Amino acid sequence: MADQRVVIVGAGFGGLACARKLDGAPVQVLLLDRHNYHLFTPLLYQVATGLLNPSDIAYPLRAIFRRSRNVRFRQATVDGVDLGRRVVRLTDGAELPFDYLVLATGSVDNYFGNEAVARVSIGLKALADATRMRNHVLTCLERADAETEPEARRALLTFVVVGGGPTGVECSGALAELMDIVAGKDYHQVSRDEIRIILVEGADRLLNAFSPHLGHYAQRILTRRGVDIRTRALVKAADARSVTLADGTRIDCETIIWSAGVRPNDEVVDASLARFRNHRVTVDAWLRVPGATGVYAIGDVASPKLGDQGELPMLSPPAMQGGRYVAQTIVDAVRGLQRERSPFHYLDKGTMATVGRNAGVTHLPGGLEFTGFIGWLTWLFVHIYYLIGFRNRISALGSWAWDYVRHDRPIRIILATGNDGAE
Amino acid sequence: MADQRVVIVGAGFGGLACARKLDGAPVQVLLLDRHNYHLFTPLLYQVATGLLNPSDIAYPLRAIFRRSRNVRFRQATVDGVDLGRRVVRLTDGAELPFDYLVLATGSVDNYFGNEAVARVSIGLKALADATRMRNHVLTCLERADAETEPEARRALLTFVVVGGGPTGVECSGALAELMDIVAGKDYHQVSRDEIRIILVEGADRLLNAFSPHLGHYAQRILTRRGVDIRTRALVKAADARSVTLADGTRIDCETIIWSAGVRPNDEVVDASLARFRNHRVTVDAWLRVPGATGVYAIGDVASPKLGDQGELPMLSPPAMQGGRYVAQTIVDAVRGLQRERSPFHYLDKGTMATVGRNAGVTHLPGGLEFTGFIGWLTWLFVHIYYLIGFRNRISALGSWAWDYVRHDRPIRIILATGNDGAE
Repeated sequence: MADQRVVIVGAGFGGLACARKLDGAPVQVLLLDRHNYHLFTPLLYQVATGLLNPSDIAYPLRAIFRRSRNVRFRQATVDGVDLGRRVVRLTDGAELPFDYLVLATGSVDNYFGNEAVARVSIGLKALADATRMRNHVLTCLERADAETEPEARRALLTFVVVGGGPTGVECSGALAELMDIVAGKDYHQVSRDEIRIILVEGADRLLNAFSPHLGHYAQRILTRRGVDIRTRALVKAADARSVTLADGTRIDCETIIWSAGVRPNDEVVDASLARFRNHRVTVDAWLRVPGATGVYAIGDVASPKLGDQGELPMLSPPAMQGGRYVAQTIVDAVRGLQRERSPFHYLDKGTMATVGRNAGVTHLPGGLEFTGFIGWLTWLFVHIYYLIGFRNRISALGSWAWDYVRHDRPIRIILATGNDGAE
Repeated sequence: MADQRVVIVGAGFGGLACARKLDGAPVQVLLLDRHNYHLFTPLLYQVATGLLNPSDIAYPLRAIFRRSRNVRFRQATVDGVDLGRRVVRLTDGAELPFDYLVLATGSVDNYFGNEAVARVSIGLKALADATRMRNHVLTCLERADAETEPEARRALLTFVVVGGGPTGVECSGALAELMDIVAGKDYHQVSRDEIRIILVEGADRLLNAFSPHLGHYAQRILTRRGVDIRTRALVKAADARSVTLADGTRIDCETIIWSAGVRPNDEVVDASLARFRNHRVTVDAWLRVPGATGVYAIGDVASPKLGDQGELPMLSPPAMQGGRYVAQTIVDAVRGLQRERSPFHYLDKGTMATVGRNAGVTHLPGGLEFTGFIGWLTWLFVHIYYLIGFRNRISALGSWAWDYVRHDRPIRIILATGNDGAE
């Protein structure tokens, strides 16, 4: 009997964890992704602010499964999933039949329907976003260095970061550090005092998912490092030269970085499926898509009905745990085990963010919290640990050491790619 | 009295050497380039074949002159030079007056007027060329892995390198190494035997600028490593799926890498200037543009009339030496020194190329030649030495050590940039 076919759509944290867990199992696994690499999204802002290379956080998927007997990767864009005929349709017309299907398509930036804001904002979800932000920020500095008109300079030198969660906090901290390095030095005609980094958050404090203590700590550190924090502020409108807040405040700026939320990337999923709040696909407590045998959805795209835990956060840990859980379910099924599995339970191992040099916040499930140097060191080692590949770990660690000792974010190149590959 | 203004157009090897030599001199220097980095072009093929990161060979120009009192950089595209009004015109309309002007605009790929070939070929002159080649080659492998039609597979897996000089030799050697790494491993459906790397050279041997001994050595090594070498072969035509040689041979291929020659990038120079063979601007033995006081041209864009040396090769050493020579001329002039300088003399320090692991060729001026491991080691250390920046040297050395020990070209990512900066 031929091995059963498992198709995994998406090679983010969830899809990759699922594929790795199925490596060596008696199934044929096909992992699909639009890109040929797994992306370590939590460090995108470090690429965007000139510290890391794209290749440090993007690991080629085929390299991960080089020696695998049963896991294959294919770079492909999925056009849709036909749950009735049990095939995955690719945009090139190919149809891939499956016995088991794992939907792990992740999430995209959520602009809450505001197309005008989406058009002029830079997100931080894809690798191209990070290089785009690096190119854009450096180009603004280049232009400001040669610009004499005060109003134009002001817009070029104002960087608005929307969203005070971990991404927004980390990104504005790293931007402040980059500006300390280049203002008046690389760009002799730009003084540090002219540069404004404005962090806009809708709630009354930063890091809402953390305790008030940690949120206030982050706010204090960022303020000290020159970030202008506007809480209880919502973005209403934006164009290429400005952003307007809900209270009518208009900020002249040519840069808007968007980290105010994500929504499930569910384009490929059958439209008839039930949706949870925020458009996540409804799955049962075993991460099964109701009414479709052998079909699972994990990570940001799905939300399980868990009795005790409520909705799971759209973060990498639930995605990875869900991926491994589903892999085990599939292995049990193909091995003919009849045992009823216990429902998926998400084990919260804590959350963390870095505000910049020597300043991190870490929240552990027992209520234990770290700030400052210890919080930063914890953040550092956890991120090194989860990066894929020995070489990438060494490279990232080397870059952080370089920055720590030299106060330098060296990759300040404006790089166009003559691309004829993806996207 | 205000300092005199020196404008340098182009921050390649010649322009950068000139600007560095003028650092600290009693002149105001403005260095212009389309990109915000100096590019170490000899290693572009290492980026294209997945060993180095773009940032390893691209050094931000502003970082070089951070602490300079008198050298400033501006990223700008020059529209033209008006020698009569003594201004440099930028595409954004700005006009930059000069007292001294150094034209160092370098060279571009020479397709000898064959527009059809230019359209489908990938050059190796700009950083975007290297990322484009990496994206393209990896995309061909991705597509071949899923392709079942034999003719389509053949075109996808045939890589034609045109030009058997150092760039073509190094590039085909590195491509062969990359294919050894990925065929049958990353790409399980692609066998190494299916992949053809064809090196096309018009002359009767490789490395024409070197001795026949070194050329034949390179040919022997490349052949042993699986490169199919066609000497006395010229490219007549090409389209997206094939290349046709002058003798009528048609090769099915989706990849053509062009390293068959360069021509001066002289778009910005006044059209009325005298040209030498191959369109290089004629300058006198002091690198002065005739009839234009204080205007110099160096490097690939210009060819001096040197009594004893003939035409200078379009390589980095004459550009760097020319840049420093002109800088000294300008310093003498502003200091009011009346001494007549001796004409520019190019000191040939030797040429070298690597054919791959443990195999290099080095030619020294006295007639001394190295091949094999010693030739390779010489190549390695000279290239590390000329790379700019401590961090870039460490990073490149680390990457070479990684490849040497692990047989790995790890940066196998297909990376689109969401670019809104240059180009």
